[in-house]
Amino acid sequence: MARPGVVLALDIGGTTIKGSIFADGREVAGGHTAPTFSVSSRALDTVLAVLAKLAETARGLGLQPTAIGVGVPGLVDARRGVVVYAANLQWAHLPLAQLLETRFALPVSIDHDARAAARAEMALRSGAGDFVFVPIGTGISAAVVLGGQIIGGARGQAGELGHIPVVPGGEACPCGQFGCLEAYASGKGIRARYLAAGGRRARNAAEVAGLLGMDPVADRVWSDAVGALSTAVTTLTALLDPTDVILGGGLSAAGPLLLGPLRATVDDMLGWREPPTLALSRAGPRAGLLGAALLGAASGNPPELNPSTGAQ
Amino acid sequence: MARPGVVLALDIGGTTIKGSIFADGREVAGGHTAPTFSVSSRALDTVLAVLAKLAETARGLGLQPTAIGVGVPGLVDARRGVVVYAANLQWAHLPLAQLLETRFALPVSIDHDARAAARAEMALRSGAGDFVFVPIGTGISAAVVLGGQIIGGARGQAGELGHIPVVPGGEACPCGQFGCLEAYASGKGIRARYLAAGGRRARNAAEVAGLLGMDPVADRVWSDAVGALSTAVTTLTALLDPTDVILGGGLSAAGPLLLGPLRATVDDMLGWREPPTLALSRAGPRAGLLGAALLGAASGNPPELNPSTGAQ
Repeated sequence: MARPGVVLALDIGGTTIKGSIFADGREVAGGHTAPTFSVSSRALDTVLAVLAKLAETARGLGLQPTAIGVGVPGLVDARRGVVVYAANLQWAHLPLAQLLETRFALPVSIDHDARAAARAEMALRSGAGDFVFVPIGTGISAAVVLGGQIIGGARGQAGELGHIPVVPGGEACPCGQFGCLEAYASGKGIRARYLAAGGRRARNAAEVAGLLGMDPVADRVWSDAVGALSTAVTTLTALLDPTDVILGGGLSAAGPLLLGPLRATVDDMLGWREPPTLALSRAGPRAGLLGAALLGAASGNPPELNPSTGAQ
Repeated sequence: MARPGVVLALDIGGTTIKGSIFADGREVAGGHTAPTFSVSSRALDTVLAVLAKLAETARGLGLQPTAIGVGVPGLVDARRGVVVYAANLQWAHLPLAQLLETRFALPVSIDHDARAAARAEMALRSGAGDFVFVPIGTGISAAVVLGGQIIGGARGQAGELGHIPVVPGGEACPCGQFGCLEAYASGKGIRARYLAAGGRRARNAAEVAGLLGMDPVADRVWSDAVGALSTAVTTLTALLDPTDVILGGGLSAAGPLLLGPLRATVDDMLGWREPPTLALSRAGPRAGLLGAALLGAASGNPPELNPSTGAQ
């Protein structure tokens, strides 16, 4: 899928940072995952550490890295390689691409995590032309694909679905608004709301999902999440008329627990027009990583300039 | 602006239907406006009557019509020429283009009213590439323009901004949903909410605007409208990252009364990113009509096949 070369791919999430090595489009053994934040490190330190580890692993396998591809959750100006704002990472105006290029002496491509993941989804759905890909993890974002083109927006900041206000005057969000989708339906939001409502200890949204039907607090918080997502799906359908809305990210692992009630509510809300098909990501939880690899491969030095990559 | 020919242009609104004649891109004296509904006629009867009147006027001026262009508020499948659903007109699955072609023996192009109007706005703003045009009249819709392309969506049904839910469980909307933007911020919605809240008699939203600062009911209803619009503008900015959001339609005549508080609220909500520029339509209240003319001109028979049009 990717153009030849050895790409260090990074999928930065609010909870973990996943990294792996792709050689000539295939994943090489030796992926690496680290918690985004730890007692001793900021997110950027983790990024640098994971990349250093990947580069070392690659070289141990006799592979010389040719490019780095990174998916970042937040406002990303892909052209300039700058993370304009990423609430969950506490980054603002960070020239990430330049910083990594200097450190690793490799070409670096960064993009919004959902847009990176949408590259993987498009590669797996040939002919998919008008869809919205919605990864739900610690946060929520979206990649809008219209007429086969991934929409970046005027400043490369399209797709911030997590920060559309779905409950006026609702839960406070780190972005400064109230009632953002992310506060209700992201993994982080579901867990926080469950605990705040007096739920028993849950380490993550998956554990809240595991309590459905047995714990009324879990039921209520889940129902709020589905309601908020229904509003978001209805909104983007009314505005953009996609054929499909594809759910990805960690929360999509809830499968029918999420998709069933969401489909029922969206169909009900969109009775006045044909609703989009709701589906789960084909690329699955690794969409972001695969997308970062495709991103890196698209920017890497052409193989003819890198005889050492062994590209055919 | 339009290609040569004599176009009968129609801008169908929920309150009035405006029609005019454009010859070689310039408007010819002899426009005609009629109330969409009257005691004796349905919206379709009015459409036919206005077109017949325009054709007669054109011929009286020695001009032979070569095409018809129509902007319709609602879900429009422009390719098939079908109005899929238009709540304010009580139309569903109406093959309008075919019907008018048969009746008037002319090529007919129809499109969503906002997308038609956006053609006029683009013609007046050279270089405008990423903007959302939001006409606010009896209803509310939008034309999304990205990279200089007007976005139709997979089924030609993009741009239904009026039916994004901005207040969960809010006002009932004829579309079947609750809390649609249109129920709060359209001309029809503002008037209805003002009267329902015990306001004195107001014939339209402009009269409600005229009472601001003097009538607390008007103040509250207007503030709700601005709040609902702010949510909508914030939503489409987060999703699509346009440089400009352009307000048109009858309500945009309120000018600073609308734009001032809207700008303040949107800037506040979008503190986490650069807000779009909010501006009033350059094409003004005639954007829809001018857009319909451009639409008709784009579909009209090429002048070399119609020597009678006198096109050079």
